[in-house]
Amino acid sequence: MSTSEPASDRVLAIVGVGLLGGSIAAAAKQRGVARHVIGIGRNVERLQAAVDAGIIDDFATDPAQSDAEWDLGIIATPVDRIADDVHRLAKASRPGTLITDVGSVKETVCYASSLGLPEGIHFVGSHPLAGSEKNGFEFADADLLQDRVTIVTPLNDSQIEAADEVTAFWKSLGSIVHRMDVATHDRILATTSHLPHVTAAALARLLTDELRPFAATGFRDTTRVASGDSDLWTAILLTNADAAASSLDAFSRQLDEFREAIRNRDGERLKTLLQLAKTSRDAL
Amino acid sequence: MSTSEPASDRVLAIVGVGLLGGSIAAAAKQRGVARHVIGIGRNVERLQAAVDAGIIDDFATDPAQSDAEWDLGIIATPVDRIADDVHRLAKASRPGTLITDVGSVKETVCYASSLGLPEGIHFVGSHPLAGSEKNGFEFADADLLQDRVTIVTPLNDSQIEAADEVTAFWKSLGSIVHRMDVATHDRILATTSHLPHVTAAALARLLTDELRPFAATGFRDTTRVASGDSDLWTAILLTNADAAASSLDAFSRQLDEFREAIRNRDGERLKTLLQLAKTSRDAL
Repeated sequence: MSTSEPASDRVLAIVGVGLLGGSIAAAAKQRGVARHVIGIGRNVERLQAAVDAGIIDDFATDPAQSDAEWDLGIIATPVDRIADDVHRLAKASRPGTLITDVGSVKETVCYASSLGLPEGIHFVGSHPLAGSEKNGFEFADADLLQDRVTIVTPLNDSQIEAADEVTAFWKSLGSIVHRMDVATHDRILATTSHLPHVTAAALARLLTDELRPFAATGFRDTTRVASGDSDLWTAILLTNADAAASSLDAFSRQLDEFREAIRNRDGERLKTLLQLAKTSRDAL
Repeated sequence: MSTSEPASDRVLAIVGVGLLGGSIAAAAKQRGVARHVIGIGRNVERLQAAVDAGIIDDFATDPAQSDAEWDLGIIATPVDRIADDVHRLAKASRPGTLITDVGSVKETVCYASSLGLPEGIHFVGSHPLAGSEKNGFEFADADLLQDRVTIVTPLNDSQIEAADEVTAFWKSLGSIVHRMDVATHDRILATTSHLPHVTAAALARLLTDELRPFAATGFRDTTRVASGDSDLWTAILLTNADAAASSLDAFSRQLDEFREAIRNRDGERLKTLLQLAKTSRDAL
């Protein structure tokens, strides 16, 4: 509890206490943004370990069987499970409860999560651009969202109030919040996140045993995200298949320009392409 | 000077006192592998600054005009200048002098550097797999080569003695030395180093102003090397154009497999591809 501002009375329910769910729990407790954090998951031993580690205060495996009540529910499970988990949590929530998620794909997830909710339960989608190729609450970091962008994606005017409330929540964890529609989100993230995962994986597949000793820092940096969980990334890429395929096409066209300049020994053209790339990367 | 072993009497001439040349100078001095290090370059102010920073002991802009003598010359200039610099240094060297380089491409560089050397001057190619997207001796690090691989590439039996000598030199700076022929080097590095540079640059070119705020750590890691110097990389890619183009072709075939699985919503296939990539990357 901070001495400079009153601690919140808010009770959080976090479904999926992994790296991101655990980091949100730790941040909310450390910043006095929540009075109590309930972790919801499938594995009792893992949940108990998260309690023992001080990441969450209490846990449940089935929200319907829990006596607890919560004001804000955060679904931090893989994208192909989010909508089911929203509805499962919604059924066990009292009227007035707000639910959001942290999924990397928003269009299908937000529509499936918003449709058919019980009276008085509100959902709006979120996507904190923070994570790691690591998994598990052991890697939770209360500062993971500090100065990182979170995108909030209301589907229509009926979700504006919910969007304002989750925006305030993410800001209270130190995040910078942008608001956009779900299709824009999915198109942008296809290029900034889903595409780099595929290029890293395609590169990593070329690394034979003969080549491995000669992969230095450049190769390591460029392929780091390929160590991410393959189930999670299969779900993300399939849930955003059209936008991901489009970004792959745009990438292939860029690659063709480089290949042509290299094949033609066109030094002027190649240098221009590399300079444009450097300028773009340096602006990050 | 170490108290446990006698300091070497060796005098080093380093042509090109940048990040890598400066790191070699700093490492050789710190480990007592050289008694004296002469920097050779074009810019007197930069060379004087490197002396003031304690990276080198003395400098010359033209080795032919220098009174100094050296036992080992290291050419740390861009790949398209190495052969000229080898011959320029060789002309000013006394018989028995050994010259090596640090270039990222070996076949054309080693043939051009070895042909027509003065009697008694020996050359053998080297490539320390260490560097950075940063430039300048200000980023020099005496531990840059520690536990990093250096590849030594004798062209034939006449360069074996020189290869043994430079192998001992790189090892004395903490490096792990592998020996291979120039064509193998260029084929391997095309995939482990030159290809990742092109994929990073192609990705960076897709980063429009609209997308830039939403590029998180995954995109940053994957594109980091695209900040490298465009002149240097133009020279590297053109000097190794055939192998680089072949590695781009192999990469495109991998990319097509991912694209097809995504387009066809083939979750089993996509997951298998991602798992194979993860296994390969995790083995690094």
